[in-house]
Amino acid sequence: MTDIAQIEAAAARIAGHIRHTPLLNAPLLDRIAGRRIFVKAESLQLTGSFKARGGWSAVSALSPEARARGVIAFSSGNHAQGVAYAAARHASPCVILMPSDAPQVKIDNTRSYGAEVVLYDRATEDRDAIGARLSDARGLTLIRPYDDVQVIAGQGTVGLELAGQAREAGIDEAEVLVCCGGGGLSSGIALALRAHAPGLKVRTAEPQGFDDMARSLATGARQRNSAVSGSICDAILTPTPGELTFPILSRLAGPGLAISDEEALRAVALAFTHLRIVLEPGGAAGLAAALFAPDLPDTVIAVATGGNVDPKIFATALSRFA
Amino acid sequence: MTDIAQIEAAAARIAGHIRHTPLLNAPLLDRIAGRRIFVKAESLQLTGSFKARGGWSAVSALSPEARARGVIAFSSGNHAQGVAYAAARHASPCVILMPSDAPQVKIDNTRSYGAEVVLYDRATEDRDAIGARLSDARGLTLIRPYDDVQVIAGQGTVGLELAGQAREAGIDEAEVLVCCGGGGLSSGIALALRAHAPGLKVRTAEPQGFDDMARSLATGARQRNSAVSGSICDAILTPTPGELTFPILSRLAGPGLAISDEEALRAVALAFTHLRIVLEPGGAAGLAAALFAPDLPDTVIAVATGGNVDPKIFATALSRFA
Repeated sequence: MTDIAQIEAAAARIAGHIRHTPLLNAPLLDRIAGRRIFVKAESLQLTGSFKARGGWSAVSALSPEARARGVIAFSSGNHAQGVAYAAARHASPCVILMPSDAPQVKIDNTRSYGAEVVLYDRATEDRDAIGARLSDARGLTLIRPYDDVQVIAGQGTVGLELAGQAREAGIDEAEVLVCCGGGGLSSGIALALRAHAPGLKVRTAEPQGFDDMARSLATGARQRNSAVSGSICDAILTPTPGELTFPILSRLAGPGLAISDEEALRAVALAFTHLRIVLEPGGAAGLAAALFAPDLPDTVIAVATGGNVDPKIFATALSRFA
Repeated sequence: MTDIAQIEAAAARIAGHIRHTPLLNAPLLDRIAGRRIFVKAESLQLTGSFKARGGWSAVSALSPEARARGVIAFSSGNHAQGVAYAAARHASPCVILMPSDAPQVKIDNTRSYGAEVVLYDRATEDRDAIGARLSDARGLTLIRPYDDVQVIAGQGTVGLELAGQAREAGIDEAEVLVCCGGGGLSSGIALALRAHAPGLKVRTAEPQGFDDMARSLATGARQRNSAVSGSICDAILTPTPGELTFPILSRLAGPGLAISDEEALRAVALAFTHLRIVLEPGGAAGLAAALFAPDLPDTVIAVATGGNVDPKIFATALSRFA
């Protein structure tokens, strides 16, 4: 189980390698929301999402021998790029297993970071079996996207930074709205804030229809989503909360929030206009909740988790809402 | 004449009020450029451009009596918003004189920051006469966009931050490419770097056809542009270098660079994809030069000066180049 000491150790390992991201705000955005909104812009992180933190934390925690053999991850998204980037900077071989129908730009970007991309056919091949065969043959270490102690510790470094930034901004009490898939980032931040900024309370933000974490928190047991796709917030669609992450959030997080696809696109457009940052819809879920959810306190902090967005989807958000 | 002591005094006055903006980079962007590019993202500054620094510096340097009477500026762009924001935070009345054909969103935004917007007809009215009448009647202090000692000092705080950030990143020698209109930002940065990072050399970046500063630096005397409009980089179209700024740049800057509108739009698109920041075309001129100009050194720093862009122009950059 990840604890604050592991988060602080991860922070020491990533220092100088991973960007300290800014906490942004805009008077005109506050006016629209009717409350003070601060945005922790992890979209400005290297590789365009917070996933570089977890990747770096996990790769850097390996023994030199394991690192020399290499790592493997299953992802077509931000986790792939985060792990590929971290592995390359550690001179650690990296295999990323992606479905063959993944967007070409994601395949290309992951290769550009130096990873070997292995494609598989979703319909006819078993991802886990292919991964196990490769891992066995080459001695690769699997880096899971959220159910991994060191990945959670790496994501928790967002919370350490945020605790300091909130203090500097004079924020003692606030809700911290975090875009949530499997819960790695939310749980890491929750642990860090409990230790260093106990007046800041994590709440998860998920797409409507994919609010497995919110329902799990409400019922006290891990729930599943009925669908695996169908929201524009593709980066944060996961079937069920993590085994490691759920107990942490169950203990430390407030009630989960859910936002619509339209609210996510509105948040993308408002972040463009008022903060001048590029967010992907899933990375804007926390901001969407900050803008549009009912019954929030006067001060909220949204964690903007990623900015790897299809230009067409971004242009759609602008044409509809900017 | 602005000197380093005035820049450091301005830095002390803006501390805690103006954002310390990040220095960004991206491995995939470096690969495209064939060199290391760092981007000082002033587009993330409050009000969306570096102009908030000069505005804050100028307003905060006034006597309490002058501040209580108020300030006035002539601008339909980033300078208007920077001055309006700074004045509002100093509880100083603020009049912004804008042409009546300015985009409604710029008028609205300037009013949202708390300024009184006075519109005039470009064809039939004399801006300077209206400004003089208002100033006389109310005792307002005119804040010029670049030919003002305290405005240059405020913009120079970008250079102070950059000197520290370059040192942290291990950059001892680089060219610093700065989007240039009247030269307030370029000259302020040049003064700061000469004092604190003498291996960093400022070069101005202007739109082709509006490269008055480059031609002035080349000839040693202030030259004028033949046109006043006609580039997509509207934020940095000025008729001629400033009286105060030109002597500074003549002494401290390298040869000026000029970029095409297409290069500016390409830079906007690449900043979207790889840095996930929103730039306006004029604010991307330095980055365009970093990407496309010939004969640059291995390491360049582009100052991205603003992100207040028309969504339609941004969508055009994406559809053509992202």
